[in-house]
Amino acid sequence: MKTHTLLMPLDMHLHLRDAVMLENVAPLTAYSFSGAIVMPNLVPPVATLDDVVAYKERIMAAVPNDYFEPYMTLFYKNYDKAFLESVAEEITAIKLYPAGITTNSEGGVSSFDIEEMRTTLQAMSDLEIPLCVHGETDGFVMDREAEFMSIYELLATSFPKLKIIMEHITTKAAVDMLDKFDNLYATITIHHLILTLDDVVGGMMQPHLFCKPIAKRPEDLDALLSVALQAHPKVMFGSDSAPHPQHAKESCGCAAGVFTAPIALQLLCEVFDQFGKLDNLQDFVSDNAQRIYGICPEFKEVTLEERPFVVPANYGGVVPMFAGETLSWAIESID
Amino acid sequence: MKTHTLLMPLDMHLHLRDAVMLENVAPLTAYSFSGAIVMPNLVPPVATLDDVVAYKERIMAAVPNDYFEPYMTLFYKNYDKAFLESVAEEITAIKLYPAGITTNSEGGVSSFDIEEMRTTLQAMSDLEIPLCVHGETDGFVMDREAEFMSIYELLATSFPKLKIIMEHITTKAAVDMLDKFDNLYATITIHHLILTLDDVVGGMMQPHLFCKPIAKRPEDLDALLSVALQAHPKVMFGSDSAPHPQHAKESCGCAAGVFTAPIALQLLCEVFDQFGKLDNLQDFVSDNAQRIYGICPEFKEVTLEERPFVVPANYGGVVPMFAGETLSWAIESID
Repeated sequence: MKTHTLLMPLDMHLHLRDAVMLENVAPLTAYSFSGAIVMPNLVPPVATLDDVVAYKERIMAAVPNDYFEPYMTLFYKNYDKAFLESVAEEITAIKLYPAGITTNSEGGVSSFDIEEMRTTLQAMSDLEIPLCVHGETDGFVMDREAEFMSIYELLATSFPKLKIIMEHITTKAAVDMLDKFDNLYATITIHHLILTLDDVVGGMMQPHLFCKPIAKRPEDLDALLSVALQAHPKVMFGSDSAPHPQHAKESCGCAAGVFTAPIALQLLCEVFDQFGKLDNLQDFVSDNAQRIYGICPEFKEVTLEERPFVVPANYGGVVPMFAGETLSWAIESID
Repeated sequence: MKTHTLLMPLDMHLHLRDAVMLENVAPLTAYSFSGAIVMPNLVPPVATLDDVVAYKERIMAAVPNDYFEPYMTLFYKNYDKAFLESVAEEITAIKLYPAGITTNSEGGVSSFDIEEMRTTLQAMSDLEIPLCVHGETDGFVMDREAEFMSIYELLATSFPKLKIIMEHITTKAAVDMLDKFDNLYATITIHHLILTLDDVVGGMMQPHLFCKPIAKRPEDLDALLSVALQAHPKVMFGSDSAPHPQHAKESCGCAAGVFTAPIALQLLCEVFDQFGKLDNLQDFVSDNAQRIYGICPEFKEVTLEERPFVVPANYGGVVPMFAGETLSWAIESID
């Protein structure tokens, strides 16, 4: 039977939420990943040193062992350098949200005035704190990411030593930016390597495949697959796994977010194997991220096997992507 | 208080379904419309003279008075001329569905081979039976209608005397066809004069705004509004009002269809008034259709008034568009 082993898998974009939901979902990621970049969009957002330390403690209390590292992030606001120096040791990155663009992002940036942001971004550059960005405008849903490219360009050229990660990219427009600006990087989810808008609203409407940024066009999927499958040195896996209670997904006005944490590695094996690129998965799911972020995760060895795996209907009330469907790879062992 | 009177409003594209659903929704349309083109996509589809006659009888039994005319349609298959002659008196049009493209369309056309269709389409042309077309390919959801334009062109040029109605158009591409081919006409829904894809999946996901063809881009909306508001002589109102039980809309895998029958005239007044074009609404909602189809509906006079109207949460278990929201026009009287 075909197997594939991954060392120190990393999820470079993860939502763990808080309280009961945190306790439900954190162990699922900690089981199969060495570490994860944890998003700060709680209510209220993680925006102080105390917030970061306390949230990390709650995460560690929710995971069953020590073999998982939550890489903490701070919610972007205009901070001064003294504050950033005080918090630098406790965070791995700062996450910037345009105001109101996605779940719990109301306190984000409402205009990209570089002069207003200069103190913070220059300090981040000096302190080597990467900037993670949810890159969408408030425009038409299919254009939001592409419209944001001019802001990425402005950020990248204004702060050439600042590492800027274009989070959960979904378009050819974003892929094309990777080779244009040295300091632009990207995370890509597993669902954006599988879905187009067709899967979300092309047949029946599928709330469990509804996320932000929304899945785009076939040519966008092709561009994303191209850089992921070759493990382009500037792209990293980031699941953007986003748990919502079942009722919030299956009602009028369904919340955005696809829950993939417990099936991400299986799906990654399936997609990379399907294209004959399993050998590149290690770079995509760990090595690129280690090099880009300069992080050294604890040892974890995950072996997957090509055999049928039926995705559970839910995990503690959270419905995963492909619930009830059969994947072709399963986790065999973890050391 | 501002009022507006419409004479003989016609809904040139309507789904009445059958049995309990028919009894529920038919009176809602019969209340405010003089007549409606009734779609034949029942299970099994309306495809024989007996089907047409029996369905019309069931519709008439479901409406409370004689002031409503169901204009019957036949489900397109390749029929011979003798059959079409035998059924011509009982139908107003024939509706063509590409196979599997929408609700109950499995028995539709699977390839547009003009030679295979020639006997039927030429007979329809000779007998002056209009062809109503659901114009979508099975391509990417945002491209399906635009991709179908080459088939419209083929049909229009192959049968230049056949009246072809592009049903529920949603794109600038379809609007642009109206002035290119003398024998192409179009219906436009009220929801496609209000929505873009942003309203469906741009914020939360909205199952009650999910329909086929899906609402498209802002520039498409602008093009549709342009021809509707000017009451372009080749466009007609057709609601495509499509009732589904509430559970079929608010579950994983929500069915496509927006239910607008009981609020269509109110919304039309709102939109036309908003753009200062109320004077053109009579053409859009009745006179163009009378001329294009050569039909003479029974007298009905509907007066609407500009005052708040709260849309009911549901009509017999069917949730309408804008349920619970307040419209700015209401039906005042019907004679």
